[in-house]
Parts: sequence; C-alpha cells; structure tokens
Amino acid sequence: MLKECLENTKSKGCLIHNITNRVTMNDVANILLASGGRPIMAEEKREVEDITSICQGLYLNIGMVTSELLEAMLLAGKKANALHHPVLLDPVGIGASRWRTDAVTTILDEVKCAIIRGNASEIKAVATGSSQAGGVDSSAADEVTEENLLQAVRFNKDLSKALDAIIICTGKIDLVTYGDKTYVIRNGHERMRDITGTGCMLSALVCAFVCSNEGRPLEAATAAVCAMGVAGQVAYERLQDGEGNSTYRNRIIDAIDCMTGEILEERASYEIL
Amino acid sequence: MLKECLENTKSKGCLIHNITNRVTMNDVANILLASGGRPIMAEEKREVEDITSICQGLYLNIGMVTSELLEAMLLAGKKANALHHPVLLDPVGIGASRWRTDAVTTILDEVKCAIIRGNASEIKAVATGSSQAGGVDSSAADEVTEENLLQAVRFNKDLSKALDAIIICTGKIDLVTYGDKTYVIRNGHERMRDITGTGCMLSALVCAFVCSNEGRPLEAATAAVCAMGVAGQVAYERLQDGEGNSTYRNRIIDAIDCMTGEILEERASYEIL
Amino acid sequence: MLKECLENTKSKGCLIHNITNRVTMNDVANILLASGGRPIMAEEKREVEDITSICQGLYLNIGMVTSELLEAMLLAGKKANALHHPVLLDPVGIGASRWRTDAVTTILDEVKCAIIRGNASEIKAVATGSSQAGGVDSSAADEVTEENLLQAVRFNKDLSKALDAIIICTGKIDLVTYGDKTYVIRNGHERMRDITGTGCMLSALVCAFVCSNEGRPLEAATAAVCAMGVAGQVAYERLQDGEGNSTYRNRIIDAIDCMTGEILEERASYEIL
Repeated sequence: MLKECLENTKSKGCLIHNITNRVTMNDVANILLASGGRPIMAEEKREVEDITSICQGLYLNIGMVTSELLEAMLLAGKKANALHHPVLLDPVGIGASRWRTDAVTTILDEVKCAIIRGNASEIKAVATGSSQAGGVDSSAADEVTEENLLQAVRFNKDLSKALDAIIICTGKIDLVTYGDKTYVIRNGHERMRDITGTGCMLSALVCAFVCSNEGRPLEAATAAVCAMGVAGQVAYERLQDGEGNSTYRNRIIDAIDCMTGEILEERASYEIL
Repeated sequence: MLKECLENTKSKGCLIHNITNRVTMNDVANILLASGGRPIMAEEKREVEDITSICQGLYLNIGMVTSELLEAMLLAGKKANALHHPVLLDPVGIGASRWRTDAVTTILDEVKCAIIRGNASEIKAVATGSSQAGGVDSSAADEVTEENLLQAVRFNKDLSKALDAIIICTGKIDLVTYGDKTYVIRNGHERMRDITGTGCMLSALVCAFVCSNEGRPLEAATAAVCAMGVAGQVAYERLQDGEGNSTYRNRIIDAIDCMTGEILEERASYEIL
Repeated sequence: MLKECLENTKSKGCLIHNITNRVTMNDVANILLASGGRPIMAEEKREVEDITSICQGLYLNIGMVTSELLEAMLLAGKKANALHHPVLLDPVGIGASRWRTDAVTTILDEVKCAIIRGNASEIKAVATGSSQAGGVDSSAADEVTEENLLQAVRFNKDLSKALDAIIICTGKIDLVTYGDKTYVIRNGHERMRDITGTGCMLSALVCAFVCSNEGRPLEAATAAVCAMGVAGQVAYERLQDGEGNSTYRNRIIDAIDCMTGEILEERASYEIL
C-alpha cells in the first residue's frame, strides 16, 4: 500500500494550489517537488479560482491568515469543491486567537474539507471551537500517548464522523482517521519539533499523496504521514556532529526526495485500530 | 566576455530593488549576495519610488502578484524608467490565470522592460497573450529542443524586436536574444527543475549582471545565464549520496558564491545564432 | 553571565511574537527554535493583540513594512507595553525611504521599545531621523572602528539615555549599551554580511534572550550578541571547500542550536566601557 501510494505520487506530478503562511512557504514548495508533486502559490482573489481550476488539489493553511487571505481561501475552496478536488485544511495555531478560531469555523462552514491535519491541541480546538494551546505547539496535556491512545482514537473517530473528513492528528504518535478506521503511526523523531514548518510541510505532502491516489484517500494520507516520519528518522541519522535544526530541515526534504517505496515499506511503523 | 562580466558583478556591489513573490524571496536575496549584488525588497507604494531611486536596477516578478503589488510594480517601474535603470520582468505562471496574463500586459504597457525572462511557455504567452501552461512549469510542447531550435530562435528574435527587449527563454537549451542576435546556451542540469525558484533566482542574477556591466546588457545577461547553468552543474557534481533538492538548492547558491571567471569561462557552453 | 543567559534561553522556551519582513522570516523562526525560544508570526490586526498576550516578547522589524503591517505593529506594541513585555525594534533600512524613517518615528512615538538593534547607519538614522544609508547595509563612514570607538560609545550612550532603551549597534565591532554602560564585543566574521538576514536573526535572538532572563536585559542582550558572533565564527570554521553563503547560513543557525554555555564563555570576546 505505502509503496504504491509513494510511487504514484512520485510519477504523477500533481499540481497543488497552496494558500499558506509566509514562514514556511519555500519549504512547502520544495517538499512538494521532492515528493513528485508540483506547487503553485496564488492568493489574489481575482485569480484563485482560475489557479485552483488548473490544479488537482487545494491546501489551505491558516498560519498568518489575514482577512484578504481568508477571502481567497473561501473562493478557492468553493471552486475546489465544485470541481471535486480534495481540500486539506491545516488549522495552524487555532485557539491562539479568536480570529484564527473563527477563521477555521468560517472555512469549515463554507468549504467541504476532505482532510484536516493538526497537532493534538489544534485537532481538539477544531472539535471544540476553543483551545488551551500556547502558540503553534501542542500542549503536553493534549498529546497522544500510549496511555491515552484508545481515548484519543475515539475522539478522532467522533470528529471524523462529525465532519465527514479524514482527521490527521500528529505528534509523537500520529493518528490518521476516517470514520471507524484509524491508522496509528509510530515514526518520526522528537527533534522534528525544533524545525519550523514540519507540520506545514506534512500537510502539503498529504495533499500531494491524496491527489495522486484517487479513490483511496485514507491510505494515501497514511502513506504521506509515514513518509514524513521516516524522512525525519533518515535525516536524523544522517546528521553530522555540529549540525543542527537548519541542516536537519534540509535533510528531511532531501529524504523525501530520495525516498523509495522500499525504504518506506521497510521503515514505516503503523497499526490499524 | 563572461569572465569580465562576472568579475564586474562580484566587485561592483550593485543594489537591486526586488518586487517578487514570497515563495523564493530568501533565495533571491541570497543568490544576489552570492553574485556580489545587494538586494533590497520593498513593496509599500509609499516607498517604492524612493527605494528604486537608490538602486541600480529593478526586478519585477509576478509570481503571487496581488493588486497592491501590481500597483507598487507600476510605480517602481516608471521611476526606474525615468532614471534609466534596467527593469527585468519575470512573468511567472503567465497564462495560469487571466489575472496574471493581464498583469503582464499592464506592466508591458506602462513600463519599459529592458529584459524579460521566462520558460518557453511563459515567453510564448508573453508573445501571444495566452498560454497552455499548466502552472509555473513549461509544457513539453513549448520546450526548445535541438529539433525546433532555429524556429525558436526566430520566434525569440521576433519578440525581442517587437518589444525592443532582451528576451531570455530558459529550459534545457537557453536562448538570450536581442534583435538579430541570439546566444544559445547549453549548460544547467535537469534536476534544477526540482527546486522551487531557480527561474526567480536566475532573473535576479541577470538583473545584477546587467546593472554591473553598463553598455553591454546582452553579454551580461548571457554571462548570468551561463553562470546559473554552470552553478547547476557544479552543485550537482557536489551532491552526496542521500542528498536531494533542498541541499541542491543550497549548493547552487554556494556555487555562484564560489564562482570565478576562470570556472565560468571553462565550463560555459554557448554559441551565437 | 553568558553561560547562564544562554542556558535560561535554551530551557525556558519563551514564545516570541514576530512581525517581521518576508525575506528572512523562515530563518528568524528557525534561529529562535535553535536558541530554545518558540516563534509565532501574526500580523492580521484582528489577532495581533491576542497573539502578543500569549507571548513573552514582541519583535518588530520594519524591513518591507506596509501600512497594514505598521498598524499591526502599533496594536501589538501597545498591548505588549500594557503587559510589560519587552519590545525589540529593528529599523531595517531606515533612511532608505521617507516611509521607513517615518514608520520608525511613529513606532517610537507610540510604543515603548526596550531594545533597538541596527547597524551603525541605522542607529545613526534612529538618532537623527535621517540617513545616508544606501539600502539595508551600513555605509563605511558610519562603521564603528577601533579609531572611532570612544566616540561611537558616547553616541550610543546618549541615544540610550534619550530613548531609555538598550541600543545594539552591530558591525565589525558590536556595541550593546544601556545608559552609561556599554559592552564592546569583538566576535563574528566578515562573511556574515554576505547572508541575508543575519541582522534580523540576531534581533530575534536578542528578544528570546531578554525574555528568558528577566531583570537583566543588558546582560541577556550582550549574551545574545556574543552567541551570534561566536556562531558566525564556529560556522565559518566548519565551511568546506566549495561551500558559500547559503550553506554558511545553515551552519550559523546550526551553531546556535549546538551552542553550549561553555563554548559561548570560551569564545566570546567582550569588554565593558
């Protein structure tokens, strides 16, 4: 499953429309290219519908969202819905401000999002409309652990059913859920949180995988999450003495670029709950 | 010729005003610094004329152009024209939307652009006002090949004469054309397309080279295109096992930083048609 | 002193609200993470007060400032003042345009800035409200040298007293001044100026250090300036043959990530005047 999903992504060259924050936009573009996808960024409201129309998928990321960007997201999102393109929403920092929380509510009200990806605090905030999150990181109390795993899976399944969306909740343990099926993934490395944008990059990757594997979005999303986790491990192993988070970032993108179906199958660690 | 053009660029420290997309802005700034140029980015309409006035050249890039950015580009462009500074236009993704196509038309109507650089599909769209381009990449049908070379050269010469501008059409084979003279360049590496922003970076580089070599813009532009191609080759040769597009990006900028006139003369491959 | 300041920064995980330019935003975020701080970027005027409220410090950088960003900076700055959070102002390119000069004046009129960091030309322009600066670099005539050191120290002390702010003036010799006390720092490497954003990154670092060392902002700021300078030296020593400014940038951020109190104490070179 993982191998085929990766290989389709590498070969199909799907074009992804990204309306995303300025902090990690370059990394998002390069990881899409590394995966075999192709990025385009456009946010002028006069063109977002045209751009979405030539793409296969739409990635909305509310980090740094302004009122202009929100308007562009809604236009692009509705067009993507009309064209039956998958829309992925990354609710970066939801709960950090009333504005961000409202922006997510507005998007979910007006656009059918096939996939939502966030950390545990963000996913919780999507479900409840509020949050205890301190910034863009997950709070320790919300993290998915081996101890609260079953409870977290239930929470994600309920949210998935309520929104009829694939819910991707990432952290030390990643959960990829649709309806009654959850893939529990144990890959990645704790140092990934010391790089800005690993979440943003993963969301873009999921979008590319889902667009390249029509008809099985849950498996494609799982493969993308496994690929990012494995890349984090491979990249960490390649770090030399004296190298830190900036080089680690480069090596993670490199690892996606160099990833093969064989590497992914061998190193991915998941179970179904 | 190439050696002198590079050495002038390295030593003169020309200041370039960039109004460009947010995806690749950091790489644009760093490659300008690598070449010996100095970057400044400014897009508030209250300051763009002041900023252009203290610079030696202006680089306009329509990737992610909004109505505010377009307004800033027109103000800066007219000021640059009044000061006889070279203006370079990069019509990123023209044809991907009506908005981008119209933006280019507006700029070309109101600002005298000394240089236009794009891939084959973008250059074609500049000439015709429409395009088949799928996003920001060139379509295979538009690519310059050994088979259609003479026809492509003629097309570029016609466009150059019609717009009285240097036309730079990049791809596997690069064409740098002014009036009846075309430099045909065979450098670069196919993996350069797997990095976001190689085109944006090249445009900035051309702007720095042209500003640093007054009185011979065609030769300077050719030297810049050769330098980028050679950097792509040098950087590729330096890639280690397990390194991918992110590290490749860094190594390309590094290669411009480390480039000497001797390396450039030795490895540049061009002919005049 | 330096060791403790660094270790507090590494362990406390202070959240910093950044309203900064798009050129170097990603590097700013990654160097904050490397230092142990945590970045959040937000500039929508409806949310900046909320975001500032959950942070420990505010970093304002006027590179690429627009009227919308200025409005956001004033809202966030006043909120930070009300909460007694330190505000750091980086007057990037002040003097390059009337707009930037006026923006700094407006910010200083309406927001109490605890720290101002710039190169010698920028600091001079803050003091005089005008400048001879050619772009974002310091002009040679303004540079602090061994010859004009005492005069420069006096100038910085006067400005510090006039604004009741820590003044950080960076270049070959760095001055960190509050009232009648100046730390004179001789670290860093001349190649740091060939990377875009070393100044922006340093400002963010200072903000993180000051927030993590309550009650001794002058010492914390000095430690941050020393850390950046030492990182520039360590990173330069690690550069391989054929590596240039792009890799150097990564290695500087890496060096902050790998920095220990011992390395900092051993290599920092400062005196008090």
